[in-house]
Amino acid sequence: MADFTFPVRVYWEDTDAGGVVYYASYLRFLERARSEWLRALGVDQVRLLREERLQFVVVEANVRYHRPAKFDDQLAVTVTLESMRGASIAMGQEIRRGPAGEELLVTATVRAACLDAASLKPRPLPKSLASRA
Amino acid sequence: MADFTFPVRVYWEDTDAGGVVYYASYLRFLERARSEWLRALGVDQVRLLREERLQFVVVEANVRYHRPAKFDDQLAVTVTLESMRGASIAMGQEIRRGPAGEELLVTATVRAACLDAASLKPRPLPKSLASRA
Amino acid sequence: MADFTFPVRVYWEDTDAGGVVYYASYLRFLERARSEWLRALGVDQVRLLREERLQFVVVEANVRYHRPAKFDDQLAVTVTLESMRGASIAMGQEIRRGPAGEELLVTATVRAACLDAASLKPRPLPKSLASRA
Amino acid sequence: MADFTFPVRVYWEDTDAGGVVYYASYLRFLERARSEWLRALGVDQVRLLREERLQFVVVEANVRYHRPAKFDDQLAVTVTLESMRGASIAMGQEIRRGPAGEELLVTATVRAACLDAASLKPRPLPKSLASRA
Repeated sequence: MADFTFPVRVYWEDTDAGGVVYYASYLRFLERARSEWLRALGVDQVRLLREERLQFVVVEANVRYHRPAKFDDQLAVTVTLESMRGASIAMGQEIRRGPAGEELLVTATVRAACLDAASLKPRPLPKSLASRA
Repeated sequence: MADFTFPVRVYWEDTDAGGVVYYASYLRFLERARSEWLRALGVDQVRLLREERLQFVVVEANVRYHRPAKFDDQLAVTVTLESMRGASIAMGQEIRRGPAGEELLVTATVRAACLDAASLKPRPLPKSLASRA
Repeated sequence: MADFTFPVRVYWEDTDAGGVVYYASYLRFLERARSEWLRALGVDQVRLLREERLQFVVVEANVRYHRPAKFDDQLAVTVTLESMRGASIAMGQEIRRGPAGEELLVTATVRAACLDAASLKPRPLPKSLASRA
Repeated sequence: MADFTFPVRVYWEDTDAGGVVYYASYLRFLERARSEWLRALGVDQVRLLREERLQFVVVEANVRYHRPAKFDDQLAVTVTLESMRGASIAMGQEIRRGPAGEELLVTATVRAACLDAASLKPRPLPKSLASRA
């Protein structure tokens, strides 16, 4: 069971002339789901950046493309917390299609670091995340 | 005669499932040409932002799409200064295809304002631009 | 009163290093709203393309940028039909922010043509659109 | 030593409000370099698709982000063939910065499959690629 699921509709902007979704567009979908998961956990990225000078930066993304999504598809993007340690957070993500999400299109593992926005040095994950996730 | 011409190649990222370049991608091409035109005039946008807290912001873009560009096309994007006054600069731009640029694909007029990066209030165009263009 | 309103959330993908939404990203938002408006009118773009070989292509976009949107903003994008004639459709669009949409960020007029997907020649607008809009 | 190196300039479109290049933009850069590498090998993707109904589809991308690129950076993107077998091709890629490419920003391994454009079934890699690479 995923910790969080977020719906994404495919628009023309996401596709390419091969007729399907462009391979980098899926990373945009994955990031939207992570941002909404943070919001659902009470982590306000705007406030974090402005008041604590903290930002999340992706340090590793491993993506498997199983089947292509197409224009107008309704997708479900999931986030599952895999680990949190110090300044680092790892998440498993999936992109699925179909009424019950029965078609698995993409699987990914994404690792992000929490950085000081000025120095870009690692800093501990915000407590709001560490305590709630 | 355009003041400046910049080559752009069309990649998969620029196209959509309609088989041609996505309509917003042309605005990315137009902006690349404007950035390179500024560089050619000796205007360093990074230095402007860091040292003078100045940035250019597009306030109006009028775009006519005459013919579509396709994957792998080699395009030429032009910039022609139309007017400069106070904090405002207007440019005419074209996107053409073909060895001699004989196919006109897109025409645009773009108006940008020079803003204070903190207050977002208008500020006079940098002298390097006002004197050279 | 707009004919149709569609919500759009601003994600990292939409912004640029100037700290606000990149000027071409607003055209992606405008297109999402037009696609959803067509869906609401019963126009299925996938079926149109597959069965009738019809597609909509933007031929003109005039965009005024009044105020910038920022990361995490919740926006409302509107579509208002301005005219339909032959193969051509014109729409007025706005992007607004705030609980009651009180901040006007972007105004646009977009003209699209209905084209034969193979020949790219103009063809009459689909009846489903002409009769319902 | 990489098999192929392609220059990429960072524009506003590639960055996000975190002040650096958006994580999915690097995948666009990687794809440009792969497309130019294919061109340099004599593989014409447009002709392949039109005449042989063949297209390359990325099936796996593993990306490590070491340091961020910034607006206006001049980057070098490399492609190194790792393996070719049947319908599958694996490439190692790097994104570097600096006059001699001394700063390593991104490393990636990308695996693509050669598919029939209609059936999306695997088909042998084109001979032009298999013989030249």
